[in-house]
Amino acid sequence: MTTPSRRDLANAIRFLAIDAVQAANSGHPGMPMGMADIAEVLWNDFHRHNPGNPKWTNRDRFVLSNGHGSMLQYALLHLTGYDLPIEELKNFRQLGSRTPGHPENHMTPGVETTTGPLGQGIANAVGMALAEKLLAQRFNRPGFDVVDHRTWVFLGDGCLMEGISHEVASLAGTWGLDKLIAFWDDNHISIDGNTEGWFTDDTPARFEAYGWNVIRGVDGHDAGAVKAAIEAALASTGKPTLVCCRTTIGFGSPNKAGKESCHGAALGADEVKATREALHWEHDAFVIPQPISDAWNAKAEGQAREEAWNALFADYAAAHPELAAEYERRMRAGLPATFAAQADAYIAGLQADGPVVASRKASQMAIEAFAPLLPELIGGSADLAHSNLTLWKGSKSVTLDPALPESRDANYVYYGVREFGMTAISNGLSLHGGFIPYDATFLVFSDYARNAVRMSALMGAHAIHVYTHDSIGLGEDGPTHQPVEHLASLRYIPGNDVWRPCDAVESAVAWKAAIVRADGPSCLVFSRQNLDHQPRSDAQVADIARGGYVLKDSAGAPETILIATGSEVALAMQAAEKLGDGVRVVSMPSTEVFERQDAAYKESVLPKACRRRVAIEAGVSGFWRKYVGLDGAVVGIDTFGASAPIKPLMQQFGFTVDDVVEVAKSLG
Amino acid sequence: MTTPSRRDLANAIRFLAIDAVQAANSGHPGMPMGMADIAEVLWNDFHRHNPGNPKWTNRDRFVLSNGHGSMLQYALLHLTGYDLPIEELKNFRQLGSRTPGHPENHMTPGVETTTGPLGQGIANAVGMALAEKLLAQRFNRPGFDVVDHRTWVFLGDGCLMEGISHEVASLAGTWGLDKLIAFWDDNHISIDGNTEGWFTDDTPARFEAYGWNVIRGVDGHDAGAVKAAIEAALASTGKPTLVCCRTTIGFGSPNKAGKESCHGAALGADEVKATREALHWEHDAFVIPQPISDAWNAKAEGQAREEAWNALFADYAAAHPELAAEYERRMRAGLPATFAAQADAYIAGLQADGPVVASRKASQMAIEAFAPLLPELIGGSADLAHSNLTLWKGSKSVTLDPALPESRDANYVYYGVREFGMTAISNGLSLHGGFIPYDATFLVFSDYARNAVRMSALMGAHAIHVYTHDSIGLGEDGPTHQPVEHLASLRYIPGNDVWRPCDAVESAVAWKAAIVRADGPSCLVFSRQNLDHQPRSDAQVADIARGGYVLKDSAGAPETILIATGSEVALAMQAAEKLGDGVRVVSMPSTEVFERQDAAYKESVLPKACRRRVAIEAGVSGFWRKYVGLDGAVVGIDTFGASAPIKPLMQQFGFTVDDVVEVAKSLG
Repeated sequence: MTTPSRRDLANAIRFLAIDAVQAANSGHPGMPMGMADIAEVLWNDFHRHNPGNPKWTNRDRFVLSNGHGSMLQYALLHLTGYDLPIEELKNFRQLGSRTPGHPENHMTPGVETTTGPLGQGIANAVGMALAEKLLAQRFNRPGFDVVDHRTWVFLGDGCLMEGISHEVASLAGTWGLDKLIAFWDDNHISIDGNTEGWFTDDTPARFEAYGWNVIRGVDGHDAGAVKAAIEAALASTGKPTLVCCRTTIGFGSPNKAGKESCHGAALGADEVKATREALHWEHDAFVIPQPISDAWNAKAEGQAREEAWNALFADYAAAHPELAAEYERRMRAGLPATFAAQADAYIAGLQADGPVVASRKASQMAIEAFAPLLPELIGGSADLAHSNLTLWKGSKSVTLDPALPESRDANYVYYGVREFGMTAISNGLSLHGGFIPYDATFLVFSDYARNAVRMSALMGAHAIHVYTHDSIGLGEDGPTHQPVEHLASLRYIPGNDVWRPCDAVESAVAWKAAIVRADGPSCLVFSRQNLDHQPRSDAQVADIARGGYVLKDSAGAPETILIATGSEVALAMQAAEKLGDGVRVVSMPSTEVFERQDAAYKESVLPKACRRRVAIEAGVSGFWRKYVGLDGAVVGIDTFGASAPIKPLMQQFGFTVDDVVEVAKSLG
Repeated sequence: MTTPSRRDLANAIRFLAIDAVQAANSGHPGMPMGMADIAEVLWNDFHRHNPGNPKWTNRDRFVLSNGHGSMLQYALLHLTGYDLPIEELKNFRQLGSRTPGHPENHMTPGVETTTGPLGQGIANAVGMALAEKLLAQRFNRPGFDVVDHRTWVFLGDGCLMEGISHEVASLAGTWGLDKLIAFWDDNHISIDGNTEGWFTDDTPARFEAYGWNVIRGVDGHDAGAVKAAIEAALASTGKPTLVCCRTTIGFGSPNKAGKESCHGAALGADEVKATREALHWEHDAFVIPQPISDAWNAKAEGQAREEAWNALFADYAAAHPELAAEYERRMRAGLPATFAAQADAYIAGLQADGPVVASRKASQMAIEAFAPLLPELIGGSADLAHSNLTLWKGSKSVTLDPALPESRDANYVYYGVREFGMTAISNGLSLHGGFIPYDATFLVFSDYARNAVRMSALMGAHAIHVYTHDSIGLGEDGPTHQPVEHLASLRYIPGNDVWRPCDAVESAVAWKAAIVRADGPSCLVFSRQNLDHQPRSDAQVADIARGGYVLKDSAGAPETILIATGSEVALAMQAAEKLGDGVRVVSMPSTEVFERQDAAYKESVLPKACRRRVAIEAGVSGFWRKYVGLDGAVVGIDTFGASAPIKPLMQQFGFTVDDVVEVAKSLG
């Protein structure tokens, strides 16, 4: 071999994928074989990254929305020089490897986001492209385009069938994200076979309807055509681009190309051999000849690229030292040094003032207090800004004309009625860096966003999900809008912190905790209705951050413990008043945070010896058995709610002081 | 007043809505005021229903996808003569009324489906229109179009922003549902204000990209224009129709028309008065003058319409008695008389044969056994037919050319990668009548469909949701594909029966239970991996249907009880073997069904006296505290999984016989 051809380079991807899947006897060879030629052109001619530093802030982002083709990404990372040695590819899909079945952002250098759940990769990418646009508006100055990178996305038919693709493509069009360039792997095959029976959209027309630049009819196996298409995409301004690439799934496999059979299973030894022959690839499994390896290696080029940027940034820092320092702070996700103290002062003031407000209002007050300290805070709501109370005085829409000076402070997203897209875009904003996103909807509609909340947690994304109207207490809108199972279900997502504060003070503590928690998401759950203020000592105020604490103690060891959250804490306090001295009230705004406390603290709040326990929450009762056991009781709700004003509803469903007293007295 | 004008008739809707919202001081007047003229033309000139019999099987279906405008529907039902007296409208949004905040199919005669969660109404409607098409193919004969009705849908910008609208509009286009006619309330307003900042789609072009017939630019306040548009829609064949109606939200309100302020709040007494004056409506609240009332009343016409159909059906029954009987059986949702016995015989045979298969395979075997008995069973999968194993020998695609004779037996839907749309379409198929739908995806992707599962339960829809790949046991695909919190979260949806069978026998019982349960949904959860067969007596086989039962008993009263589901039952059995005589094993395939058993039975399975209890399930542990209390233990998983083959995974996460034995021994 002399100088490798483009096809040779692409075949290196193909055979790394074929051989790794064959070794694991598990995985998806078809997509990497089909998109290898596109990936080769993109990564060798256009993708601006630095394999030696996957965290370089101005790198282009690459998102594999069709994440089942993970071996394509691992092959690209390995070949271009990321810290992903060939041994890792040989261990594809094995325990402890950095090459899991689907790309995981926290496991593999160069993987920007975890993909596999279809449609969410393109949504994350829209968030990343929005982050780039807003950071550029904020930080770039004449002669200093220090923020200037693209977001490339690969996606397949599956992503395009998913509803979330509609939500986020619509927003990307509205926002004119022209540095977002997506490649559609138009191979006419999904798992059930030829898509003609279930996917007959005119996808190019659909994306034009969203205001995208659409490049049609590109032969995804013709490097020249792909290159020309990308150049055309780069020349387009004001619109994101969809490059429609006609490809053959499993390209090169004599007997499986173009068929579903190569989508999600190893080709088999015979077909691997036949494919080697068909593509004239004479090398053993996992062997990449030096000329091909050299042609792929992008380390030197990447280092030079970053060094050039570093030089630019040094000049920028000299000219604009405060901006540069602020950019660096935001990109390393460091909170302002004074934030914690300022937040604590605000919380102490609230405890002293004792406002009686709905916790959704308390949430807005907390945003109003904290957002001026945190320009990285970017908010939004799925068309419920005035119900979720997510706007604050400094809110400025991201759709402001970039020519306007105030566009530099753009920090608010009108997401429209798109809960799932919103949440996945939040994840993208967080993963890009430079932002702490918060999004919002009614708690019941967290259902629509649910898998994106899960992905926040799986990826460790610092995203804050605000859910208001948190129980039947919302009243007249009725059971479609009244959450019942949602608190428990959100708490069960591993790594997801759920807070349901009982008053303005707990609401502010929850917001602070969500802002400080950098390695995962928080769900902040607020009431529609007003909530009483609770008296607390300084020590009690400090203990809120431990997730659960004694709000009102018994005289002596507790005979009965009432455990409550949110709007039911006031009910517990009133019931305790009636029940007498032996009763302790525990406010438990976050069970997840409480569980992370040491055993001694937990025992001090919920002593094992006390089995007379009643949990009170306007949600499913089963969750609370963890705290009250077989001997305790739960005042909860295990049916759907009803449409009525709050007062008759709460009576109907057993949430009165007398109900709680009766239940507590019924315990043996 | 002499003969009322069309505008007078429409104003009756407007003021019923205005006055009911004002009386409740809660609700959404803007949409009914905006769509009243469209509704008036549709209901008075085209909608073929019978107010005296809301269950007439060949009625047109009307779906209010923008369900917050519920007063529009209540006004229409009241005015045309349904059993919804004016007192109910005066009690709008009050406890116990038949006029809840959002339309509820189980509360109000004439409400076909519960709406409010945006986008799902149009999805239900697609399911209804599909049901009509398939029933027509199945039952109509030359001269006897006994199934011949339309599905009308009102929807707003919110529905169109939601991702699910993409999924189901795409399918409706693919299926060519030309009796589906949707009216877009194009009023440029959503809750956050003018939609220009977040909804810039070219919606007509988008729907044309789905293969819809689109009628653009209709003035929604010009009755003649609306009538012409509907006539054009009726003339179109082979495509569903979107009628794009330009309207003014809050039409008639001098100060709030065209503004968000009239969307979701009462107009206020002054503005109600001003609107009365502006629209020249001189009648008191809830007073409809006789001429207007008479013009709206559709009882006689509806009765004549149904009687004409009854005559047609009588002739049809004479010519095709078996078809007529089968149509009536299916529309009244009666199972074939022999089904239960045949199912039990199949189950007994399985117990005798003892096949060792994955429960997803056992599910397919059950479908293969039951589907030939139940032509109403209509299946499908979100592009995972060969993983979910939802196809059977008699499966015939709904996309078959209706000219082909086998199209009469169409019973299988290739949904593509559209979990949410699929599930909401299932709800629509069920609500229409004539079908028992099952849909399928991986358990983890029930997240994408979650609110539609909730709606199945809220509406009492007889829908069966099949979820395979039910734990980390699926192996290499890794944490994005491995459910952890999903079993618990689905169980917490009120009214939702979740089954996780441990072998082929329990799988068949679960399928039978899901088919027999006519008043709500069932989620059937199956493994990817093979599961051991469990020996059982006849009594034990019978007890499976009770949701939980003693699979292996202790000698004497149990010292320890192991409770397990699905793939962990075999583990429990092996651990019990090692632990000795004092151990009872309870198989608990459905906790919801178990909870419905009488107290004596429950005590016989889980005696209160025995506190040494270990629950074993490869899912979140918290759920099982309900059964093991504070003194027991749970072998569960409270983190995300990992990508690896099943064997090292199960070791890594503590699901070995030795792990279970150790945990059981550790109990005091």
